[in-house]
Amino acid sequence: MNPDRLFDSLREQVKGLAPSNMDISSIEFEGPIVAIYVRNYDEFSGNVDVAKNMAMSVRRRVDIRPDPSTLEDPDKVEKKIRSMIPDSAEVTDINFQPDTGQAFVEAINPGAINDQEILSALKKESGWNVKVMRSPPIPSKTISDVRGYLRYSKDERSAMLKKVARNLVRPVIEGEQWVRVTTMGGFRQVGRSASLLTTRNSKILIDCGLDPGSDATPYFAIPEANPITDIDAVVITHAHLDHCGTLPALFKYGYEGPVYCTEPTRDLMALLQLDNIKLAYGEAKKNLYDAKDVRKEILHTIPLKYGSTTDIAPDVRLTFHNAGHILGSAIAHFHVGEGLHNIAFTGDTKYEKTWLFNPANTKFPRLETLVIESTYGGHNDYQPSRHDASEQLGEYIKEACTHGGKILIPVFAVGRSQEVMLVIEELERTEAIPPLPVYLDGMIWEATAIHTAYPEYLNTQLRTQIFQKNENPFLSPIFHRVETADMREEICHSPDPCIVLATGGMMSGGPVLEYFREWADDPRNWLLFVGYQSENSLGRTIQRGRTEITLPSKGKQITVEIKMNRETVDGFSGHSDRKQMMEYIRKLDPRPDKIIIGHGEDRKCTDLASSIYKKYNIQTVAPQNLETVRLK
Amino acid sequence: MNPDRLFDSLREQVKGLAPSNMDISSIEFEGPIVAIYVRNYDEFSGNVDVAKNMAMSVRRRVDIRPDPSTLEDPDKVEKKIRSMIPDSAEVTDINFQPDTGQAFVEAINPGAINDQEILSALKKESGWNVKVMRSPPIPSKTISDVRGYLRYSKDERSAMLKKVARNLVRPVIEGEQWVRVTTMGGFRQVGRSASLLTTRNSKILIDCGLDPGSDATPYFAIPEANPITDIDAVVITHAHLDHCGTLPALFKYGYEGPVYCTEPTRDLMALLQLDNIKLAYGEAKKNLYDAKDVRKEILHTIPLKYGSTTDIAPDVRLTFHNAGHILGSAIAHFHVGEGLHNIAFTGDTKYEKTWLFNPANTKFPRLETLVIESTYGGHNDYQPSRHDASEQLGEYIKEACTHGGKILIPVFAVGRSQEVMLVIEELERTEAIPPLPVYLDGMIWEATAIHTAYPEYLNTQLRTQIFQKNENPFLSPIFHRVETADMREEICHSPDPCIVLATGGMMSGGPVLEYFREWADDPRNWLLFVGYQSENSLGRTIQRGRTEITLPSKGKQITVEIKMNRETVDGFSGHSDRKQMMEYIRKLDPRPDKIIIGHGEDRKCTDLASSIYKKYNIQTVAPQNLETVRLK
Repeated sequence: MNPDRLFDSLREQVKGLAPSNMDISSIEFEGPIVAIYVRNYDEFSGNVDVAKNMAMSVRRRVDIRPDPSTLEDPDKVEKKIRSMIPDSAEVTDINFQPDTGQAFVEAINPGAINDQEILSALKKESGWNVKVMRSPPIPSKTISDVRGYLRYSKDERSAMLKKVARNLVRPVIEGEQWVRVTTMGGFRQVGRSASLLTTRNSKILIDCGLDPGSDATPYFAIPEANPITDIDAVVITHAHLDHCGTLPALFKYGYEGPVYCTEPTRDLMALLQLDNIKLAYGEAKKNLYDAKDVRKEILHTIPLKYGSTTDIAPDVRLTFHNAGHILGSAIAHFHVGEGLHNIAFTGDTKYEKTWLFNPANTKFPRLETLVIESTYGGHNDYQPSRHDASEQLGEYIKEACTHGGKILIPVFAVGRSQEVMLVIEELERTEAIPPLPVYLDGMIWEATAIHTAYPEYLNTQLRTQIFQKNENPFLSPIFHRVETADMREEICHSPDPCIVLATGGMMSGGPVLEYFREWADDPRNWLLFVGYQSENSLGRTIQRGRTEITLPSKGKQITVEIKMNRETVDGFSGHSDRKQMMEYIRKLDPRPDKIIIGHGEDRKCTDLASSIYKKYNIQTVAPQNLETVRLK
Repeated sequence: MNPDRLFDSLREQVKGLAPSNMDISSIEFEGPIVAIYVRNYDEFSGNVDVAKNMAMSVRRRVDIRPDPSTLEDPDKVEKKIRSMIPDSAEVTDINFQPDTGQAFVEAINPGAINDQEILSALKKESGWNVKVMRSPPIPSKTISDVRGYLRYSKDERSAMLKKVARNLVRPVIEGEQWVRVTTMGGFRQVGRSASLLTTRNSKILIDCGLDPGSDATPYFAIPEANPITDIDAVVITHAHLDHCGTLPALFKYGYEGPVYCTEPTRDLMALLQLDNIKLAYGEAKKNLYDAKDVRKEILHTIPLKYGSTTDIAPDVRLTFHNAGHILGSAIAHFHVGEGLHNIAFTGDTKYEKTWLFNPANTKFPRLETLVIESTYGGHNDYQPSRHDASEQLGEYIKEACTHGGKILIPVFAVGRSQEVMLVIEELERTEAIPPLPVYLDGMIWEATAIHTAYPEYLNTQLRTQIFQKNENPFLSPIFHRVETADMREEICHSPDPCIVLATGGMMSGGPVLEYFREWADDPRNWLLFVGYQSENSLGRTIQRGRTEITLPSKGKQITVEIKMNRETVDGFSGHSDRKQMMEYIRKLDPRPDKIIIGHGEDRKCTDLASSIYKKYNIQTVAPQNLETVRLK
């Protein structure tokens, strides 16, 4: 059946399910959502059950929206809406989208509006479908740009969503079905993560990373799929570049399909990708893509919340679950066919409650195969607790202070930065260390702003601290944003002790190198590693104790003598350590039949594979890149 | 560089290497061969070293041929040639191919001509490039048809070879290279064998079988390669239908590339495929292909001898080695890149000297990966020796004779038939059993004829017996060919004891069922299994002791009561047993790094994999169908 006829038949089905008094003007298919436009929207705006029940019956997500012709003029409505919202909500902005009848209210305290009664009243009185969004307590340029760009590009976005909807209803090939995973990158290695999930009917690309050490991309030249023309959907587990750093290149070369990820992942990945372009530009490296490709990626991204099940191919449903690794990081669970197979890709996970997040989800409705990371999967990869790590960090900072040294901490902008900020803020607040200024260089500030915009992704304790106790540790006056090259220069040459958190986390590039170049030869200074250094990164080389290194400086190569202290503070990792991994697998409910292991150096993958098999008698595979494992 | 310019540059290179007195009229590229046409052919016909030396330098096979315009009239030349050949050669036919300047002499004893001196003289005197071929001592309709068809289609063949040559010189993609094997059929199962060898530059399909039990074909719908448009070459290891039974379908749907196999494999597979069409027609089943598709396959087949290394893709060289399984069966050894990787596919192998063949080859110039069968790979799969098997067969026949029973032996036309014929001939000749007539039904006679046409593929002892002692056991008067349905009917209903060897070997169809239907309910009769019965075959069901079975008979289904004796004579298998397999691997020189195991039931594959790993510490994999294993 062709999609148009299928849509017509679905429309008939939806009409049949609608309450008799619903005055439907049209039914549209927008990506995975069925949008029902009604003339008497006010009669249904208060009743969420109507959409819910219809969704259950058609097995698709349903959204009831006001017919555009029934909508009052935005200017008038804005006043009405503002007057109905309690001041405590602190509304910062209201945006209207006439085509969908949605009015987005941005507020400092959306909780004050997100009350079913207020929301219903707002919808009823305004005629608009009012949605409430949090305006970040620290303003984020990224979020504002992303949302603005999406409003600006609504026609293209609408066309894109219609195309996705058409692809979702294409007829499936009957006969023998299968489910396979092809490893395109990031197996028996860390970096350039990419897996291809193929069924008889669909091809899904999970992650599309870049190797931070070598800039290697996934193996796109494989015969299994042309990533531009053959892919139904891309799913991104989290925003680190080793999971999404090549994605804009797909759009550059013509990919036009959807990208599924959480909303914070969308914003963080845009931030990191744009930063990566800037870094490459600064280093006169050829970049894989441009800012306009990142914009295309944003346009094609369909954000999903944890726990919301969505059709992403004719025979594949996706549900995201918390992975505990960074903001918005997700375990991607795929239900293939009608009960044919269930497979989850963990992406990177942390199975411990951290300063920022809850531990990774272990419970799935069904699960036959799990694809898991093994960054710290070696049998000796035990890490101290978060508490011990904080103490250790404090000790090193104190020691550095006694000699008037400066402290440089290479971090990823996203994840480790925010944890280390929380720890240092507490250490200074409790006077465990002297009151040093903490400089944040290279997107850390912006990444922090994004964290505060999505509190529903943070752990309960931090959320309470920020939003109920009004004690946002990120707003502490000890933190200073490095905003200009001059300011960086000044900090570099200032004689006063300070702490600098700077990207890149593996020292493969970024502002951290500016500080390192200046401070390396002074034995009073300290370089503190708090995150994973991959095998071929500059960070790993320096961490191992090299006394001299050649670095680019203003177009020339200079040799830097390294006399500064170098220490590693274990325990801040966003990755589960060996114990947590084994515990995570023990707690999985249900227990999978097969575990595929990737995202780890060669020996860690095979070591973890053999331990899981021995301890839990679960079949394990540690494929190389470019292999295909059949699941069903 | 485009192929034409590349060919021009190769021509220049060849001219540079040619002796100064060689009067070259043209240089053509025909498949993997460089054909040099010369006006003064007589000056070089006696000197094989010229071509050999040039081949070494250009790293291609070189053939020096007379320029067509210099050739004398075939009629005149035929007389001249016949007069120069000793009578002992017993020439049966001479065929001339003016375009290549080749004259094919068919003789009963080609050895009498295949003397370097006589050959040189023939070439020099006739002006033609004389090739000598054996005319089968038992005339084979298949061979005569195949050779006739190829002569008749010489223009198409020439165009095909030119196309293959162009594909061989296409430029390769530089950069990171890889070598992978994708399992398309016949892994963790017996039947529909097919593997895809993919490099960064090429795709080779190894075997293209049909499951004899279910008629299932390999997984052609995989995304890795479209078997019609994406394949550089098909390589067939041997002629059994579980290795080549789907091949003509590729041609039916448009494949136009080459097929590489040995000459006997080409002829035997045509025989078996045509027989399969006839069987399907008889059973009113829909066949996958037609006789014209088999003809296309023959047209596209480039036969290779054991030990001759040939370019089959820009980065892949193929060498066949004896596999010991059936006539022409080959281990296909692939050398990828310039020393990048070496992988051999054993196909089916026998590592024991049999009545017919030498044991499988164990020595390779290099070998990193071996793909091996595991039909009898289970830890209990030990088989009696050939000698014990012969004795056992004699015992059963004697016992059957004492009660006047008939003996029915289901056999594959190719391989087992000929061995059982040799054993029965010896048993009767030595009077170990009574002098019963032996009826051969369903292609066995024809297959035997093909065996006698390619003595260089038989073991030394049998070759001597046939060609030096003139004691061809296949010509014994005890053997009778069943040529008509009437004759079959007569044998079926005759009261006299006899032995019938009939196809198909697993009783999934073929004349064996005609005899079985008539003889099953008489407890004096015997059904003797001498070959492997696959899991879902009718043969296996009957072997297991079922007392009643429903069979098609003249368009109706009839129920047959089974009272006849059923016995299995182990030890005639063309497959290595467990001990021979383990011994084969021990003897491999060099020892491979990795062994991939297929062509066996599920448990046999995994059992053999784990034993090889434990005993020899070689990495083993027993993939399912639809998996991809990376080798380099």
